[in-house]
Amino acid sequence: MTLADELARQQRSISVAEFFEKNKHLLGFDSPTRGIITTIKEAVDNALDACEEARVLPDVFVGIKRTGSEVFRITVEDNGPGIIPAQVPFVFGKLLYGSRFHQIRQSRGQQGIGISAAVLYAQLTTGLPTLVISRTGPDNPASRFLLQININTNEPEVVEQSEVEWDRTHGTRVQIEFKSSMAAKKRLLEYLKYTSVVNPHARIRVELDDETYLFERVSDEVIACPQAIKPHPHGIEIGQLMRMLGAEGGSCGEFLVENFTRIGKKTAEEICRNAGIPPATPAASLTPAEQKRLLGAMQGVKVPAPPTQTCLSPIGEELITRGLEKEFQMDFVRSRTRPSSVYSGHPFLVEAAIGYGGKLPPDGNAQILRFANRVPLLYQQGACAITGCVAGVSWKNYNVSQAGLPTGPLLILVHVASTHVPFTSESKDAIAAIPEIEREVTLVLQELGRELKTYLSRRDKNRLQEDRARAVCSIIPEIAAKVAEIVDLPVPDTSAIEGRIMRKVVVKKMSRDGRVRLEVKNYTSQPGALTIYDISPDSGEGSDPKPAIVTELDGEHTKVWHVEIEPGGAWSAEYFGAGGGSLEIRGMPPEHVVVVDLDAQ
Amino acid sequence: MTLADELARQQRSISVAEFFEKNKHLLGFDSPTRGIITTIKEAVDNALDACEEARVLPDVFVGIKRTGSEVFRITVEDNGPGIIPAQVPFVFGKLLYGSRFHQIRQSRGQQGIGISAAVLYAQLTTGLPTLVISRTGPDNPASRFLLQININTNEPEVVEQSEVEWDRTHGTRVQIEFKSSMAAKKRLLEYLKYTSVVNPHARIRVELDDETYLFERVSDEVIACPQAIKPHPHGIEIGQLMRMLGAEGGSCGEFLVENFTRIGKKTAEEICRNAGIPPATPAASLTPAEQKRLLGAMQGVKVPAPPTQTCLSPIGEELITRGLEKEFQMDFVRSRTRPSSVYSGHPFLVEAAIGYGGKLPPDGNAQILRFANRVPLLYQQGACAITGCVAGVSWKNYNVSQAGLPTGPLLILVHVASTHVPFTSESKDAIAAIPEIEREVTLVLQELGRELKTYLSRRDKNRLQEDRARAVCSIIPEIAAKVAEIVDLPVPDTSAIEGRIMRKVVVKKMSRDGRVRLEVKNYTSQPGALTIYDISPDSGEGSDPKPAIVTELDGEHTKVWHVEIEPGGAWSAEYFGAGGGSLEIRGMPPEHVVVVDLDAQ
Repeated sequence: MTLADELARQQRSISVAEFFEKNKHLLGFDSPTRGIITTIKEAVDNALDACEEARVLPDVFVGIKRTGSEVFRITVEDNGPGIIPAQVPFVFGKLLYGSRFHQIRQSRGQQGIGISAAVLYAQLTTGLPTLVISRTGPDNPASRFLLQININTNEPEVVEQSEVEWDRTHGTRVQIEFKSSMAAKKRLLEYLKYTSVVNPHARIRVELDDETYLFERVSDEVIACPQAIKPHPHGIEIGQLMRMLGAEGGSCGEFLVENFTRIGKKTAEEICRNAGIPPATPAASLTPAEQKRLLGAMQGVKVPAPPTQTCLSPIGEELITRGLEKEFQMDFVRSRTRPSSVYSGHPFLVEAAIGYGGKLPPDGNAQILRFANRVPLLYQQGACAITGCVAGVSWKNYNVSQAGLPTGPLLILVHVASTHVPFTSESKDAIAAIPEIEREVTLVLQELGRELKTYLSRRDKNRLQEDRARAVCSIIPEIAAKVAEIVDLPVPDTSAIEGRIMRKVVVKKMSRDGRVRLEVKNYTSQPGALTIYDISPDSGEGSDPKPAIVTELDGEHTKVWHVEIEPGGAWSAEYFGAGGGSLEIRGMPPEHVVVVDLDAQ
Repeated sequence: MTLADELARQQRSISVAEFFEKNKHLLGFDSPTRGIITTIKEAVDNALDACEEARVLPDVFVGIKRTGSEVFRITVEDNGPGIIPAQVPFVFGKLLYGSRFHQIRQSRGQQGIGISAAVLYAQLTTGLPTLVISRTGPDNPASRFLLQININTNEPEVVEQSEVEWDRTHGTRVQIEFKSSMAAKKRLLEYLKYTSVVNPHARIRVELDDETYLFERVSDEVIACPQAIKPHPHGIEIGQLMRMLGAEGGSCGEFLVENFTRIGKKTAEEICRNAGIPPATPAASLTPAEQKRLLGAMQGVKVPAPPTQTCLSPIGEELITRGLEKEFQMDFVRSRTRPSSVYSGHPFLVEAAIGYGGKLPPDGNAQILRFANRVPLLYQQGACAITGCVAGVSWKNYNVSQAGLPTGPLLILVHVASTHVPFTSESKDAIAAIPEIEREVTLVLQELGRELKTYLSRRDKNRLQEDRARAVCSIIPEIAAKVAEIVDLPVPDTSAIEGRIMRKVVVKKMSRDGRVRLEVKNYTSQPGALTIYDISPDSGEGSDPKPAIVTELDGEHTKVWHVEIEPGGAWSAEYFGAGGGSLEIRGMPPEHVVVVDLDAQ
C-alpha cells in the first residue's frame, strides 16, 4: 500500500456546521462577550428585515438575563410576519438556508448563516436547544419549537414541537442560552443606540437583567421594503452565465430579456447580432465558444446602470439628522445621501453625516459610526474601507486637525447600502476596499467637510467679534465714570451699550411724566422670542400694544407681553403709570439678554 | 394566504459552493490580481504539506503563463506522495473536503477549502475545468483528470479521466486557468521569497512568462511531519463532549482514556469520582446533567498541558537565521523560539527574529514578516494580532525609534505555529487577537528587543571609540615628525601604533642580522584568520613555524603561512634571509588589516 492510499483513508467531507463550529470566530463568536452582541445583532437584523417585508413598524424586544454563573439567556421578539411551522426548523437549525441569498436587493441578513450560528454556539457551549415561538396571523395558532443542529449533517433536529397560546397576533420570538460574561454591556448599548439611529422607524425595548432601556422611534413612516431586481448584463461572470443558459428552455433572445435587468427586446437583438448568434437559437444549445461571445457582447452593449430606486433603501438626510440629534448633543450636524452607483454589477449608495461640537469629546480621534445596510459595524474599525477613506481625506483643508484620523469634537457617520455589501469576513465587521465604494465615501466626506468648514469659519468669525466686543466693553464703564466725573453727573448705566456691542437682546424699562415705556432691541443675528413679566402697582392701562395677560395679586399687577423680534428689530410698549416694580424675562437663555431697568435705579 | 406563506416560498438551502462563489473575496479572491497569488499559495501549501507527510525534500515547480488577453494558466507541481485516483475529484472538486480538518496537528492547509476555491474561481471566470495529474508511485500509472465543481450541489464533476505517461514517479500537478492581470508580480515574488525563508528545506522553481527564478533550499534535512494528537480535556466544550459521548460504545472510564490526551487510567478514575459517575457507566447512557458534571470534572482535574513536541513543527532559531540571511543583507540578526503554550486547548508556539542595518531601508516603518504554520501572510497587516503586538512593544526602551510601529532599518519576523491558527477570516490573512498568543508574541519581541539594544549600544560604543581613535591617529604622524625633527632622526612609520589604536590586525615584517621576522598582532575583538604571502629572494630556510607552502618562480620564493589568531593574540615566524620583497595578506577585509613592511622602506 502506498502512502497515498494511507492518506486517502483520512480524507473526509466536512459539514458546513462542523466547519463553522470549529471556526466560530469567523462568524463573530470569537469571545464569549462578543457572542451576546453577535446573537442580538443577528436576531434584531432578522426582526427588522421581517418587519420591513411585512410593512409594519418594528416593535422589537431584547432581553438579556443571567440564568447561571456564566450562562445568559438572550431573547429577541418581534412583531414581524412570523414564520410558518414547516420553515422554522430550517431557518434556525440549518446553516446556509434563507430567502435573501438569491435575491438582488438591500437587506440586513444576506447569507442565511447568522441566527443558526447563534443556535450552533448555544448548543456547543451549553448543550441546550433553542426555543422559537412564531405566529403568522390571528387565525393561526402560535407554534413553539425546541430545536438544535445536527453537526455532522447540518440538518435541523426538532427536540419538541407544540401549539401554544401567545398574546401577539403575529411575530417571532427566539430564546437562546449560552456561555458568556456580561463584560460588553457598554458596547451592547452602543450597538442598540446606533441601530436606533439608522432605523428611525423602529422601537427597541431592552431588558438587561433588571434595567430597562427604550430606544424610541423618531419616525412613524413604514419604510418601503427594497424590491429584488434581476442581474445586470455588465455584472455577470462566464461561469454564472453558462449555468443560467443551461437551465433555460427558451431562445437566446428570450433568455436575455427574461433574466436580466435593462435588456429589452431591441437590446437583446443587438447583443445576439454582436455575438453572431441568431436570437432564436435555443439558449441551452450554445457551445462554450458561443457562450463566451455572448458574454462579450453583453458586456460590450451600452445599457443604463441597474435601477437602484427600488432595490436600495437609503435612510435619507433628514432622518439621519434626526436620528443623530436624538442620541448626540452637537452644535452642528449635516447629512448627505449620494446618488446610487454600481460596483461589479451590484448597486450601492453611500450616505454620511458630520456632527461637531456640543457634548462630543473635545480631544482625540473623531468618533466614526460605520453602517452597512442599516446595521452598525462595531468591530475591526481599522480593517474597514470606511475608516481608510476617513483617514484619506485631507481634513486640514476643512480646518479640522488630523493625525491619521481627524481629531476634535467630531462625529462621522457613514452608511453603505447595497444589494451585496462586500464584507472582509463572514463576521461582517468591515467593508472591503472596493475602489468604487471608496470613491463615493470620499466624495461624500469631502462634501460634508466643505460644509463643516463654512460652519467653523463663521463660528470663528463670531468668536473673533465677540473677543473684540468683550475688550471694548471692559473699558466702557471706566470711560463712562471718567466722563461723569468731568461733567459732574451721576455715572450712567452703560449696559444697553454693552448689550449692543455684545450682540444681545436688550430690554429697557423707563418711566417719565406718568407714562411707562418698555423697549426691546435685538442686536443678535438670530430672531428672538421672549416673554416679559412687568410686575408693578401699575395696571398697564392704555397700553399699546396690550399685554397678553394681566393678573393682580395684593395690589401688584403682572403684565405679560409675548415678543417676537427679528435680528436687528425693535419693539416697544407704553402705558400710563408711575413705573417701579420689577422686570422678569423668560423664554431666552439669560446670557443672551440684558435687562436695563431704569426704574429700579 | 399569509405573508409568512409567501415568504416561505422564497426560502432555500444554499450550497457551500454557491456561498463561496458569491463571497469569493472571503477566500482571497477579491481581485483578479490577488487570485493568482491565492491560487499559488493554496497549491504550494498543499504541496509542502504533502511532501512533509511523505518525508521527502520538497521540489516544487510554479508556472504562470498568459494564455489569453486576460487569462493566466497557473501550474503547480510537486514531488509529494500523490493522490489516489478515487480521491482526486473530491480533493479538487468539492469545498470542505480534506484530511487535515479533523486532525489536531500543525499543517498549512486546515479546512479543505483552498484549492477547490481556486477551481471554483477558474470555472466562474473562464468556464474552464481544472487539469490534475497525480501519481502515487513507480508501480502505478499517472492519472489525468479534467474536473469542475457542480455549484448547486458542491459535488465534483469529472469532465475527462485517463491514464497518462509522466516522468515523475510520484507527485501531483494542478493546472488552473482564470481571468487575472499580472499586476501583482512583485507581491508574488515576495510571497515566494518569504515562503522560502520559513521553509528552508524546500526548493521552489518559478517560471513567470519567460523569466525563471530559483529559491534554493538552505537545509537538506527533511522536516518531521507533525503528528496528530487527541483533544485535551481542558479544551473541549459541552456540545462536542455530548457528541463524542453519544458515539461511544464503551464505559465512561474507557471513553476518557481513549479519546483524550493526558488522561490515563488514574486520571480517568479521578474525573469520574469528582463527577459522581461510576467509571463503568456506559458513556452513551449519561444524562445531560451527568454530561455537564463530567465536563466540569474534566476541566477541574490537574493534567499537564497538551504535548507539543510532536504536533507542532517550529522552524528553529538556526534555520530562521539562515533563511533570513539568504534573502536579506543585514548587520544583525537574532532569532528566538519560545516554549510552546496553549489557548482554548490548542497548542501553539511563537518564533521570531529581528534583523537590523545592512541593506534594509534606513527610514520608514520596520518591515514585518508575518507567518502562520510556515505560510507567509501578505494581506491585512493592519488587522493582524502580530502587527498589534509589534506596535504595542515600547521600542524606545530598546533604542529603536517608534511611531506606532518601530521605524528604521529593522526587519521583524514572527511565526505562529499551532494545531489551529485562529485567522480573522477564511482568506487567512490575519491572526485574531487571542490574548494567549498576543502574550507570547510580545514576550518574544521583548527578548529580541533586549538583544538588539545590546547590539546597538555596543555598536554605538564602538563608533564612539572609533571616532576618538581617528582623532588621535590624525595627529600621531605630526607628533612623530616633530619628535624626529628634534632628535634629528628619520620620521618613523607610525602605522602599527595606529593599527593598535584603530583596533586592527597588524602584520609587521622586519629583517636584521641575516634573520627575517614576521609578526601578527590582533587588536580587534574578533578572532581572525588570514593568509600571509611573503614574496622575496629568501627561501624561508630554517623558518619557525614552517610556511604551509613555498613556491619558486624566477628566483623569487613565495612563502605562505595560514595564521589563526585570537582577539588580543600575537603570532610570529623567523627565518634566515636578507628580507626585502613584498607582503600580501588575504582572507581578511583590507580595512581590518594594517601591513607594516619595514623592509620595504
